[in-house]
Amino acid sequence: MAIVLGGYQYGKAETRVVRICRDSDWHEIRDLSVSTSLRGDFTDAHTSGNQAHVLPTDSQKNTCFAYAKQKGVGEIEEYATELARHFVDDVEFVHGARVDVDEYRWDRVTAGGTGQAHTFVRAGQDVRTTAVTAEGKGRDQRIWVVSGLTDLVVLKSTGSEFSGFLKDRYTTLPETTDRIMATSLTARWLYGPGHAAAGISWGDAHTQIRQILLERFAEVHSRALQQTLWEMGKAVLQARSEVTEIRLSAPNKHHFLADLAPFGLANPGEVFYAADRPYGLIQCAVTRDDAPPPGPAWQSAQAFI
Amino acid sequence: MAIVLGGYQYGKAETRVVRICRDSDWHEIRDLSVSTSLRGDFTDAHTSGNQAHVLPTDSQKNTCFAYAKQKGVGEIEEYATELARHFVDDVEFVHGARVDVDEYRWDRVTAGGTGQAHTFVRAGQDVRTTAVTAEGKGRDQRIWVVSGLTDLVVLKSTGSEFSGFLKDRYTTLPETTDRIMATSLTARWLYGPGHAAAGISWGDAHTQIRQILLERFAEVHSRALQQTLWEMGKAVLQARSEVTEIRLSAPNKHHFLADLAPFGLANPGEVFYAADRPYGLIQCAVTRDDAPPPGPAWQSAQAFI
Amino acid sequence: MAIVLGGYQYGKAETRVVRICRDSDWHEIRDLSVSTSLRGDFTDAHTSGNQAHVLPTDSQKNTCFAYAKQKGVGEIEEYATELARHFVDDVEFVHGARVDVDEYRWDRVTAGGTGQAHTFVRAGQDVRTTAVTAEGKGRDQRIWVVSGLTDLVVLKSTGSEFSGFLKDRYTTLPETTDRIMATSLTARWLYGPGHAAAGISWGDAHTQIRQILLERFAEVHSRALQQTLWEMGKAVLQARSEVTEIRLSAPNKHHFLADLAPFGLANPGEVFYAADRPYGLIQCAVTRDDAPPPGPAWQSAQAFI
Amino acid sequence: MAIVLGGYQYGKAETRVVRICRDSDWHEIRDLSVSTSLRGDFTDAHTSGNQAHVLPTDSQKNTCFAYAKQKGVGEIEEYATELARHFVDDVEFVHGARVDVDEYRWDRVTAGGTGQAHTFVRAGQDVRTTAVTAEGKGRDQRIWVVSGLTDLVVLKSTGSEFSGFLKDRYTTLPETTDRIMATSLTARWLYGPGHAAAGISWGDAHTQIRQILLERFAEVHSRALQQTLWEMGKAVLQARSEVTEIRLSAPNKHHFLADLAPFGLANPGEVFYAADRPYGLIQCAVTRDDAPPPGPAWQSAQAFI
Repeated sequence: MAIVLGGYQYGKAETRVVRICRDSDWHEIRDLSVSTSLRGDFTDAHTSGNQAHVLPTDSQKNTCFAYAKQKGVGEIEEYATELARHFVDDVEFVHGARVDVDEYRWDRVTAGGTGQAHTFVRAGQDVRTTAVTAEGKGRDQRIWVVSGLTDLVVLKSTGSEFSGFLKDRYTTLPETTDRIMATSLTARWLYGPGHAAAGISWGDAHTQIRQILLERFAEVHSRALQQTLWEMGKAVLQARSEVTEIRLSAPNKHHFLADLAPFGLANPGEVFYAADRPYGLIQCAVTRDDAPPPGPAWQSAQAFI
Repeated sequence: MAIVLGGYQYGKAETRVVRICRDSDWHEIRDLSVSTSLRGDFTDAHTSGNQAHVLPTDSQKNTCFAYAKQKGVGEIEEYATELARHFVDDVEFVHGARVDVDEYRWDRVTAGGTGQAHTFVRAGQDVRTTAVTAEGKGRDQRIWVVSGLTDLVVLKSTGSEFSGFLKDRYTTLPETTDRIMATSLTARWLYGPGHAAAGISWGDAHTQIRQILLERFAEVHSRALQQTLWEMGKAVLQARSEVTEIRLSAPNKHHFLADLAPFGLANPGEVFYAADRPYGLIQCAVTRDDAPPPGPAWQSAQAFI
Repeated sequence: MAIVLGGYQYGKAETRVVRICRDSDWHEIRDLSVSTSLRGDFTDAHTSGNQAHVLPTDSQKNTCFAYAKQKGVGEIEEYATELARHFVDDVEFVHGARVDVDEYRWDRVTAGGTGQAHTFVRAGQDVRTTAVTAEGKGRDQRIWVVSGLTDLVVLKSTGSEFSGFLKDRYTTLPETTDRIMATSLTARWLYGPGHAAAGISWGDAHTQIRQILLERFAEVHSRALQQTLWEMGKAVLQARSEVTEIRLSAPNKHHFLADLAPFGLANPGEVFYAADRPYGLIQCAVTRDDAPPPGPAWQSAQAFI
Repeated sequence: MAIVLGGYQYGKAETRVVRICRDSDWHEIRDLSVSTSLRGDFTDAHTSGNQAHVLPTDSQKNTCFAYAKQKGVGEIEEYATELARHFVDDVEFVHGARVDVDEYRWDRVTAGGTGQAHTFVRAGQDVRTTAVTAEGKGRDQRIWVVSGLTDLVVLKSTGSEFSGFLKDRYTTLPETTDRIMATSLTARWLYGPGHAAAGISWGDAHTQIRQILLERFAEVHSRALQQTLWEMGKAVLQARSEVTEIRLSAPNKHHFLADLAPFGLANPGEVFYAADRPYGLIQCAVTRDDAPPPGPAWQSAQAFI
């Protein structure tokens, strides 16, 4: 029996890159948090401290800034792909790279009904994300693109029930046919291998999927959050043939009916206490029965530990 | 010389009240964080532990929920005023009350271009606020209303310079005639005593003032954040005669130009690093030369310590 | 009636200064967050954008780093005083300065029972603080020192009751003679004017006051958090004649007894649910009846708005 | 091709359980955040909304509280195992359960050198963790225990270099033979299957492993964080034969030497700027070459998405 090095990876996390497009007086903004993670032959760096194979995380950070200028930031999926391919193609000893990009959304400020050329206000809560993984060099290189969104906070004030559930000796929850359902949704979807290179409009796909998620959340009469997530995921796969899997993670942000009876007041679904913790956490994946294995697509830094 | 009790206050902080208006199938939502603070004759509670004058914070919380039903939550200024008056009028030993309300904004989800009757998505980053202080009972009662907003994150990608500043031996900052200016604005404005009771539309006032702040931020060619804040505040007072003072607090969210020269790349205001800390913090008030003394209007829990 | 500039101040917030003392191989560490705020004649900077009187916040940041070398960081009160005096004495147009310093505590790592010369582990939750305000130049200069601590999280599992309180129609809370009392304490104490220059050991004072707060929290049989705070503050003033006022702010971190009756289990003060929000917020000051007016000592950036 | 349900799980996250042991006047405290996650046959809950197989997350929460009384909270590994086994053994349709427990550490307050019977102060930054996974019922049941710690913030002020690294066209970082190395460590270690049932002292193991991690961090002259992590992990496996794998995740909390040259000051490793973002993120596993497959031991909720 010997003690051996297991898995490892390293990179630079949360590089905050802001790219202003000022080709004309009508500026555009891309506001990003970029995290890079390299996999390859770094055993010596661990076991002997020899860093000869290790590109500093500082260099990775520099590359994020340089590429924002050299390659631009048209769509985060393209920017992340450029970065991931670069690390694998151009850096010796690197076999795989994952680049996560979060994009913060801005709206243009309007004045007198007219959009302002170079002034912006942060929009919404939700963040557009992508995670591009590249493995292998040259002809053998493969790319996985997992795009998504986080912090999409939604609430429906009716059209949600929770009843007919399993009961055990620790069950005290009453059944309900009308409750608030609210969540802060994280969704990530995997583009199939063929489509990653096929030139879809990433931005249009994001906009459409976000809208589908919102619409299904609104329209499905919910018997449970599980069902709503399934219906949301299924609708995305129906609409986007190039998406092979979508994963959804939804904290159930509980809203408890305030007990106003001691004050002689009825409370027919009007006044609620929004609780922080604990919260239900519901997670599911919707996929296709012919989906190829996802490879390393879902292996995030958070999944490592 | 004796050791004596100085100032004190107590209350319930961050009660999360969600009020659904369901008078019809077309629901409305008010999502609030309510903090109450009572001032009065509570010396014994401190010095002898006798709680006979102390209304529990739990009762204050209950009142927030009950009033959301009894009085409704039409505008947060009205709801906060009802609560503040109640504590002063109806609770013995209470001489003053401050009620802070933060309101989180929601947009209605649309599907097929149509608004959904009962489904909402969190809107924007910024939070609408009010702080209503009541002092005195009956005829002597006075009310102060300070409304505002927090977390209004704005950025302009040009139209901002910083030059001609004072230099000392620790100054290394180069002058610039073109930089990114960004902040996460907090603004609070005090309504004059006459107007508090005069039936202005609080919601309209909020919307208009928020828009003025955005427009001035966009339109003023900025020689410094101080100047921009002054212009923003001045415009609000020009537009709203019932506002006697506005205070603005603006962290200067620095965006540093990425140094791409080592990579042979020019960077004419295109690629920036968004820094976290430290940040400049610029604060100013704009008022009227005939404004009455503000009394306790600005005495928040944060100001206590 | 005219619109005029009201109060203002500006500075650099949360500069993270780490100072290693390496005069020998036995290193010491001081880990600080420094915020500076200048007051003076900056009207033009606001109303005309002329920055001739404005020392950049970047220069203030540089000074924090330079002084950590030039003056050292023996005690945060001394370091903050050096900085505050410098800004007032050496920077034209500055009439007053406030320097806030938070110090994060580190313990030395031990190995084999021996302290390690240069390795440290973060200690505790609580943060040592000071806020030094200087006003006036030369002979007229006055200095106020408010030291304190934040985030001192304490809990007692018995010895706390809450009963005999005022009841109104919204009161549902049962009285209790035995509950958990927990808080995350913020305390700030003002040193009298004479003692600020008298060479007390700031570190010893901090250690002693922190210990007094802990002991009184432990020893006082509490009839309410108000009483406990009073007793804590009073003990500090009794022990430290140079302290003229102490302010305490204590969120009541509620621990609710879990209802285990539905499962046939008794729960005599053993199992609790630790709630997040809402929380009681209890604040009081303990002072001396001959205390001089505190001047600007308590005017923090948080108090501005 | 059909759209199908992929993986799923659900549970209650961050139930805050505080358990006071008051068998005598000398109280003990266990302060926990408990998250449960169930896996099993819940397909219908998603695809048809039928909840007949779904035990509410509210019941799971109740069980956490009830077990804190019924079974006590001797060691978090035992408490989590009891819960995980219960869900799998006693709840129909559940095939697997994961229970994560974070334990917040408290020190006893001392007064006059004597420990206080029932008063505590939060200790340190780091959190003790465990994640117990149970799969299968009856004889086929298997248990995996992954214990660990998070937020162990450590810093060494010398004894760390970074040189001899790979350089590319985006490399600007100078080599250094003396720098600050600091991190906020997360470590998780997997106990081998035999030892999980063998009655080791979980608390002693935690204490010893934490100490080993601290000592190795202190003693290893670091050529890079990778090397330090490897040495830390290796030492843990050498000391604890029942641990089959340890994973370490270490953000490199950069401390940059302040540039004091413009002020005519030398800075030989004395004054640093502690940066927030970006940060290096270094992750590695140390294992045994005969370690059995880890099964679901590392499949956290974070790893799902």
